[in-house]
Amino acid sequence: MIEQHTIATEGAQGLDNLRQSIGRLDEELLKVFAERRKLSLAVAANKLAANRKVRDQAQEKNLLSNLTAKGKDLGIDPCVTLSLFHNIIEDSVRSQYDFFLENTNPEDLAPLKLAVLGEPDSYSHIAAQQHFSTKKRRFNPEHCPSFLSIFKAIESGDADLGIVPIENTTAGNITEVYDLLLQYQLKIVGEEKLKVKHCLVATKGATISDIKDVYSHPQAIAQCKSFFNQHPTINSHFRSSTSSALKLVAEYQNPSIAAIASEQAAENSGLEVLSYGINNYQENYTRFLFVAKKDIDVPSAIPAKTTITLQTPQKPGALLDCLQVFKNHGINMTKLESRPIPTKPWQELFYIDFEGNASDLIIEKAISELKHLASEVTVLGSYPMHDILATKLDRHALSNQFNAL
Amino acid sequence: MIEQHTIATEGAQGLDNLRQSIGRLDEELLKVFAERRKLSLAVAANKLAANRKVRDQAQEKNLLSNLTAKGKDLGIDPCVTLSLFHNIIEDSVRSQYDFFLENTNPEDLAPLKLAVLGEPDSYSHIAAQQHFSTKKRRFNPEHCPSFLSIFKAIESGDADLGIVPIENTTAGNITEVYDLLLQYQLKIVGEEKLKVKHCLVATKGATISDIKDVYSHPQAIAQCKSFFNQHPTINSHFRSSTSSALKLVAEYQNPSIAAIASEQAAENSGLEVLSYGINNYQENYTRFLFVAKKDIDVPSAIPAKTTITLQTPQKPGALLDCLQVFKNHGINMTKLESRPIPTKPWQELFYIDFEGNASDLIIEKAISELKHLASEVTVLGSYPMHDILATKLDRHALSNQFNAL
Repeated sequence: MIEQHTIATEGAQGLDNLRQSIGRLDEELLKVFAERRKLSLAVAANKLAANRKVRDQAQEKNLLSNLTAKGKDLGIDPCVTLSLFHNIIEDSVRSQYDFFLENTNPEDLAPLKLAVLGEPDSYSHIAAQQHFSTKKRRFNPEHCPSFLSIFKAIESGDADLGIVPIENTTAGNITEVYDLLLQYQLKIVGEEKLKVKHCLVATKGATISDIKDVYSHPQAIAQCKSFFNQHPTINSHFRSSTSSALKLVAEYQNPSIAAIASEQAAENSGLEVLSYGINNYQENYTRFLFVAKKDIDVPSAIPAKTTITLQTPQKPGALLDCLQVFKNHGINMTKLESRPIPTKPWQELFYIDFEGNASDLIIEKAISELKHLASEVTVLGSYPMHDILATKLDRHALSNQFNAL
Repeated sequence: MIEQHTIATEGAQGLDNLRQSIGRLDEELLKVFAERRKLSLAVAANKLAANRKVRDQAQEKNLLSNLTAKGKDLGIDPCVTLSLFHNIIEDSVRSQYDFFLENTNPEDLAPLKLAVLGEPDSYSHIAAQQHFSTKKRRFNPEHCPSFLSIFKAIESGDADLGIVPIENTTAGNITEVYDLLLQYQLKIVGEEKLKVKHCLVATKGATISDIKDVYSHPQAIAQCKSFFNQHPTINSHFRSSTSSALKLVAEYQNPSIAAIASEQAAENSGLEVLSYGINNYQENYTRFLFVAKKDIDVPSAIPAKTTITLQTPQKPGALLDCLQVFKNHGINMTKLESRPIPTKPWQELFYIDFEGNASDLIIEKAISELKHLASEVTVLGSYPMHDILATKLDRHALSNQFNAL
């Protein structure tokens, strides 16, 4: 690891030398990381046997505090050390969660049949890849043309599991999926969040000033509204998925039409990416739900989220009384969404997400109280929470490690 | 690195053994990472001498493609390998950018006097720490009670540099800062983005049901609107900064009052955190600008962003004509914000951010065209773009590495 002192670092040859040395260090990093992951699974087995929680914030604080101090000696700012190890710890925690889940819900290892909107490289497909990256079990995507066909595939047993987007930080809720959840009464068994970056894609050789018509899924178009405001002569058209929009552009080979799709899909399409990241906000995230016929058991060692639907009686303050139940028990609501009930005009159904597991005593108690106040309460499922909160170090632990004097 | 096979991994002793082994692997990781960072700076010196761009996407693709394949052999999913190395490459690119910047704008290494809103651990302070984490130069924070006092401190020379928030993904633009930019005509020399997580903090022993009054900065309160909707009996009150709100809670020691502040500030305050992440959206980011009296030279090897203000004549289509200039030159606008001009009722001033450097030929040309169309154009500065886009691998490079079959 001292080769950089002995090799030439100047000129084109020097650049090659440096890159080769970096490549070797990266492989070394990866090997150490792989060893760490193995040990992390041994830790998970130990914790499962001892019935311990997966996360131990005090232990994480010790580790991070030691590493930021060691990093400082090596000339690495604590911010940089923390960012690197937050990433590594997140992977470790996610793998341990999956280890617990697999042990609580034992299943064969045959690949799952997963119903996914659109073609390979659709956003749903990418989110599924991300979700399964720490799991032992693999999946076979079954590509579906619509949200409805995903729900139907699960109901009929053609698919074991489905993935559907439920909300986006720019464009809001996907109401169609909320309505399908109500109609099909499938169980929610997981969630995933994906950073979404929309690209404008056209035939080879086309330029932005050639474009007259842009095709994409309505959600993608909504998330790129400011692009259309900036280009008032370009018309937008809806397609059932971003991937079907790409197909259309590839088929027509007309330089005046373009599609909006994911970076991954764009780069795999053989078409030309005219612009990267045309979404209104660079920080653009979509939350996905996994749905299945049967719910899963989330072990108590893992933080869970629960989704319920609630119908309140037609009297003033009925919703407020229900919300008071959450407050009284100190339950953190993470989402409250109201939808009209198609068969009961002017009545509303509420979708509520909150932190906790339907099998926790406190949640059971809250739900039974809600059943007295509401005209209907349905638990759509408890599932592992996607967000893994990074353990922070307080000023004492960092004791002047930061570069502000 | 094979010790996990020889040590006991069961029971409390086993957990200790595993944790010690993980701690040693983490230190090893950190050492290899520190070596990599040194080589990365040698690469920067090589590129600077050869007048090369900092980023070389083809080289990054090779590296990532090799690493995902090697990772696969070690049982690591490509998603996980990519996430780890995107983080490492981002640090490397940021350090190389800073190396170029320091060489183009040589300055002494005395700590900068940085005007910052609020107390230590204010969001601005945390963003500044993050921003300087890859830089050689350090900063001394000069804490200011208001945005106005930050601008005044720079104008008077009491501070070298100031940091101010300009927009938030949940609550929108900070119009006061836009107006101060216009009034003081300082130069924008940098930007930073920070993920913001608001915590509810009260005196020790208080519970959420005790709280009647919550104090914070108006922006923080706006970003936690849904918390106040869920707790209709809790009143919100404005303070000049989140840190002054914390101070107030610490002084009064009254269990019915609470503050909203950053996690770091909350944990350092000696007060009790009643709830973590009470912001409406978990994905909540604030963008900050660095302002100074004098602008900086951004070397052409680094992607830059430019901010201008624009006044258009009072005739129909004037703004559209200006926007057309950006489109004609293929310049990517990243923000368009309009503000009333206080001295000219019903006239609007536009703030426009776009990708590119005011010293690029194409940007120079566009600005000179704008000067013919607009009644006034002012360049507020060109500065290094904060976002470092991760290099993606296409399906060919990943050739079946993903866990979908």
